Amino acid sequence: MSDFGDRSLELHKKHGAKLGVTSKVPLETRDDLSLAYTPGVAAVSEAVKDNDAAARAMTMKGSSVAIVSDGSAVLGLGNIGPTGALPVMEGKAVLFKEFADIDGIPLVLDTQVPHEIIQVVKRIAPTFGGINLEDIAAPQCFEIENKLQDIGIPVFHDDQHGTAIVLLAALINACRLTGRSMTGLKVVINGAGAAGTAIAKLLRCVGQDSRICVPVKDVLVCDSKGIISRLRFDELNNAKRSLVGFTNRDDRSGSLKDALVDADVFIGVSVGNLLNQDDVRSMAKSPIIFAMANPIPEIMPDEAMAAGAGVVGTGRSDLPNQVNNVLAFPGIFRGALDAGATRITEHMKIRAAFALADCVEDLTADRVLPDPLDKSVAPKVAEAARDAWFEMPG
Amino acid sequence: MSDFGDRSLELHKKHGAKLGVTSKVPLETRDDLSLAYTPGVAAVSEAVKDNDAAARAMTMKGSSVAIVSDGSAVLGLGNIGPTGALPVMEGKAVLFKEFADIDGIPLVLDTQVPHEIIQVVKRIAPTFGGINLEDIAAPQCFEIENKLQDIGIPVFHDDQHGTAIVLLAALINACRLTGRSMTGLKVVINGAGAAGTAIAKLLRCVGQDSRICVPVKDVLVCDSKGIISRLRFDELNNAKRSLVGFTNRDDRSGSLKDALVDADVFIGVSVGNLLNQDDVRSMAKSPIIFAMANPIPEIMPDEAMAAGAGVVGTGRSDLPNQVNNVLAFPGIFRGALDAGATRITEHMKIRAAFALADCVEDLTADRVLPDPLDKSVAPKVAEAARDAWFEMPG
Repeated sequence: MSDFGDRSLELHKKHGAKLGVTSKVPLETRDDLSLAYTPGVAAVSEAVKDNDAAARAMTMKGSSVAIVSDGSAVLGLGNIGPTGALPVMEGKAVLFKEFADIDGIPLVLDTQVPHEIIQVVKRIAPTFGGINLEDIAAPQCFEIENKLQDIGIPVFHDDQHGTAIVLLAALINACRLTGRSMTGLKVVINGAGAAGTAIAKLLRCVGQDSRICVPVKDVLVCDSKGIISRLRFDELNNAKRSLVGFTNRDDRSGSLKDALVDADVFIGVSVGNLLNQDDVRSMAKSPIIFAMANPIPEIMPDEAMAAGAGVVGTGRSDLPNQVNNVLAFPGIFRGALDAGATRITEHMKIRAAFALADCVEDLTADRVLPDPLDKSVAPKVAEAARDAWFEMPG
Repeated sequence: MSDFGDRSLELHKKHGAKLGVTSKVPLETRDDLSLAYTPGVAAVSEAVKDNDAAARAMTMKGSSVAIVSDGSAVLGLGNIGPTGALPVMEGKAVLFKEFADIDGIPLVLDTQVPHEIIQVVKRIAPTFGGINLEDIAAPQCFEIENKLQDIGIPVFHDDQHGTAIVLLAALINACRLTGRSMTGLKVVINGAGAAGTAIAKLLRCVGQDSRICVPVKDVLVCDSKGIISRLRFDELNNAKRSLVGFTNRDDRSGSLKDALVDADVFIGVSVGNLLNQDDVRSMAKSPIIFAMANPIPEIMPDEAMAAGAGVVGTGRSDLPNQVNNVLAFPGIFRGALDAGATRITEHMKIRAAFALADCVEDLTADRVLPDPLDKSVAPKVAEAARDAWFEMPG
């Protein structure tokens, strides 16, 4: 880990910015200048000023996504502020380019006040074809994203939905492997932050907003105090209260360990070393475990497998079945840009998750997701997202 | 003109965005991914989060400039809004890249309210090494720029200062050619918008804020109602009132034509076809004329020369002595980035203007400025701006 850190510092010192701007048009002659800039460009300005389709065809609006962060929840580093977030956003931009030929533009903000972030995003929106919100802490991330759904371009908080889509794809394949149907799953999600909440919502929505009908009816979400339920309503923040509306239908209460008894699936987006082998043994036969805490998973895969797990995934690149957002966000945005979509719908997310699951041909317990570096994945995810928009524009 | 327009439309349809993002780091292996992004990038985040110098060395903060417009005064097209402004800002970004290897990031804003523009710029500032304000109408442009001078990175409204710097360079050379000293010039500026005001200010400042002492004491600024003077104070907006403080020291009044009598220099940033040959003949011997209205100059160069002008410049690329901002802004920002400057000082502007003037070796009446496509200019301007910052940090 520290080796990666030292080498990454070296790499960054060598290159400075990880991304640069390049010109696609020649600029050698006076004529070139007159076409790329004044006076010729005036005709382009006139053509695009009141015409969204023309703007997408002739400006960066058709190819660019702003990567916006307030630096309030950066990787495992917490609230390190906008400057600390910048190298991460640049890395994200590099991934956008490499996997989906999207021009990602980092924008780190000197504010962590939700309505101020909302205002900035609204005001810069004419420049971009989409907005990727990144590393913004819960619960503010929910309000910020919700209030930006009607600005005419997709606004997508990757820490929520990117993770949820890749996790859903992994879960689809894990069910295929262990012979389960999604509908009948008993799922326990530990962690009610950005990712945990989005996963719960996506499991709910698969049967509601999509034509692909796979509702997951039995979902419990736990926070550090145990199962989130109606009985705890008074102490819950708004984001957690909304979870009560569609999870834990039987009003169960108790600890995470209580929740796990007979569960088919554990989804951890919490902290490391939380589960032991007895917990795994208390679950249903051959349980599915995604222990995504970083850098230390909730339980190490070898321990979980030894205790009878059917499939185990983590967030780590050095272990099998890495749940890595890069499998989703480049394709999702590529599909949205190609479709001229004005938002990312639930249907797009679910179609994308199925497309991602289908990318794995030789399904095994060690391989329920494609390799994060497989560049054939994003185009397939993009196609699914694009088609989903055309099937059901949001 | 329409030929340029048609061909520019074709070029834009072919390329879409004129600029793209490129990655400077490899992304082929798992190891690459671990260095450019997580987990390695966390070390970079920690290193830069509270360290401006480290951020400039290892992120886009050291190499990027936001090009911000509200679309309120785009080229000769007027208030066409943010989307119409986008192709122009992309063109500007292309120029930044080509001439100064700066990563220009267009940001067009869905607001024309000064305090909202100010807020957006303040909030995005951690991302960038500088802010180029562009095509924002007067008088709002003055307030917006003024209130952004203390945000820790240079904020420079190019329509004001880019034009003023290039004009000053042209004037320096025109004085050399016609054997005049800057100090004794009688100057008439027609047009009290962004450019006219900035030119008046720069002529004032050359003797105040810079170690190079060439004050121009006799400056009159005219608007559509004639000479701006103390006598018209009640009807003037704040921006024009501030001009009264340092121009027209003898409280003259009258029309533009009255102002021109015996003047050495006419600087037009107004509308076409405003001067005739008798106006030129009413000026001092061999007057210097910069008729920068676009696309039709205040007077055509051949007419002015026939009436006795010593030097004539315009804003047009098809006529001699084009006053083109591209001669200034790439170098100014390059120098500011190289110096880690927190603002663009008057001293930097003036040193840059002299450096630009000195780029012309074979001075003639048809050549008081370098060719806008001469790529050897920006590095010299950059060096002067950088040195000026170190001489007198602002």
